[in-house]
Amino acid sequence: MINVAQRLVELCITLPPASDPAANYTNCVQTGSLLFVSGKVPSAPAGGKVPKGKLGRELTTQQGYELARSTGLDILAAVQLALGNLDRVTRVVKLQGFINATEDFDQHPQVLNGCSDLMVQVFGARGVHARSVMGAISLRGGVPMVIESLFEVAAR
Amino acid sequence: MINVAQRLVELCITLPPASDPAANYTNCVQTGSLLFVSGKVPSAPAGGKVPKGKLGRELTTQQGYELARSTGLDILAAVQLALGNLDRVTRVVKLQGFINATEDFDQHPQVLNGCSDLMVQVFGARGVHARSVMGAISLRGGVPMVIESLFEVAAR
Amino acid sequence: MINVAQRLVELCITLPPASDPAANYTNCVQTGSLLFVSGKVPSAPAGGKVPKGKLGRELTTQQGYELARSTGLDILAAVQLALGNLDRVTRVVKLQGFINATEDFDQHPQVLNGCSDLMVQVFGARGVHARSVMGAISLRGGVPMVIESLFEVAAR
Repeated sequence: MINVAQRLVELCITLPPASDPAANYTNCVQTGSLLFVSGKVPSAPAGGKVPKGKLGRELTTQQGYELARSTGLDILAAVQLALGNLDRVTRVVKLQGFINATEDFDQHPQVLNGCSDLMVQVFGARGVHARSVMGAISLRGGVPMVIESLFEVAAR
Repeated sequence: MINVAQRLVELCITLPPASDPAANYTNCVQTGSLLFVSGKVPSAPAGGKVPKGKLGRELTTQQGYELARSTGLDILAAVQLALGNLDRVTRVVKLQGFINATEDFDQHPQVLNGCSDLMVQVFGARGVHARSVMGAISLRGGVPMVIESLFEVAAR
Repeated sequence: MINVAQRLVELCITLPPASDPAANYTNCVQTGSLLFVSGKVPSAPAGGKVPKGKLGRELTTQQGYELARSTGLDILAAVQLALGNLDRVTRVVKLQGFINATEDFDQHPQVLNGCSDLMVQVFGARGVHARSVMGAISLRGGVPMVIESLFEVAAR
């Protein structure tokens, strides 16, 4: 087992404050050993706004990759807040990516890789997950992506 | 624990008859303590047809909110039929909303709130859930939304 | 309990080799008795390429039905590779279909039926599942659909 807090330091990753749910719901629901996490969006850069736009028009695939990584950091922040300690994550089970895209965009997997690669960097073999990705015609507030996630967690 | 049947009466909610699956599948599958519910659509008003159209064009956000609440009632009808008693629901785990929307629509959360708010009204703290929402280019029969849901249930 | 290998012979079904994940993730993750399977796409016909295009424009609903069945075969190949034996599947829990569609397309369920019908043919009553389906504006590589799936499995 790797120590995740130490791994984050090695990766020079500082988690952002967990974003608040935007409405009458919660970030995370645990049932048994499964932790279901609400859809998350890219974080605003320091002093900036949450980026907007579509992949294939305002945003390139490489920008999308970075935004998916940013979204992954917000997911981890929400999980840490819910669990108290990321070492309680025994497996990243699933990611589901909804990419705000044009009709012609076809590089959805390369975008979601930004989040997938982060999970494997942070959790090692425990971070290898199942996933799906699709193109959305529009997303809340014009954000470029929403990523939903599912984790297997150990008892307290 | 609240008594859900009594709570429905207090809220003046009468559940519609559960809609039938449209094809070779079923409304609900229980595995362990998890009840997976098929995607549901808004109910037809008394004597009317299931509404059609896109959020951001034929339908306003407020209309969408009401349609999401109507969809929630059909979800509850399906769950009640499967479980026999809504008191067996120990947690609303997750909602996933697919909103038939235009490219410019950006109020997907405000629409899904119609279903989220219903769950919290009916189940109280047990009704607070994780969720995601995205914009679909089209949906079956031109309906304005499909909401998929997941419940944690107690043994009989 | 039916013997699935024998059932596949009766149905004249030969599973394709399981497709590889396209990036930093895996086909299947098992947690407890749940097997989460990554989104799968239609298989290439012998000597051909993976089909591309949108339902409602390049592809008819009937073609979509066959492509959904083809996707189902790839799902089964992935599950067989993960479990060693399809008889370990105790229930098809859920299918989620993302259909690459035009704005006017409205026959998403008839398309996903290709996969649903396959599951019931192969697994009998164990194959009856919950499901959702929606229209995507675009999908990876221009494929006509992605189907995500969830199975309940018995211990080894």
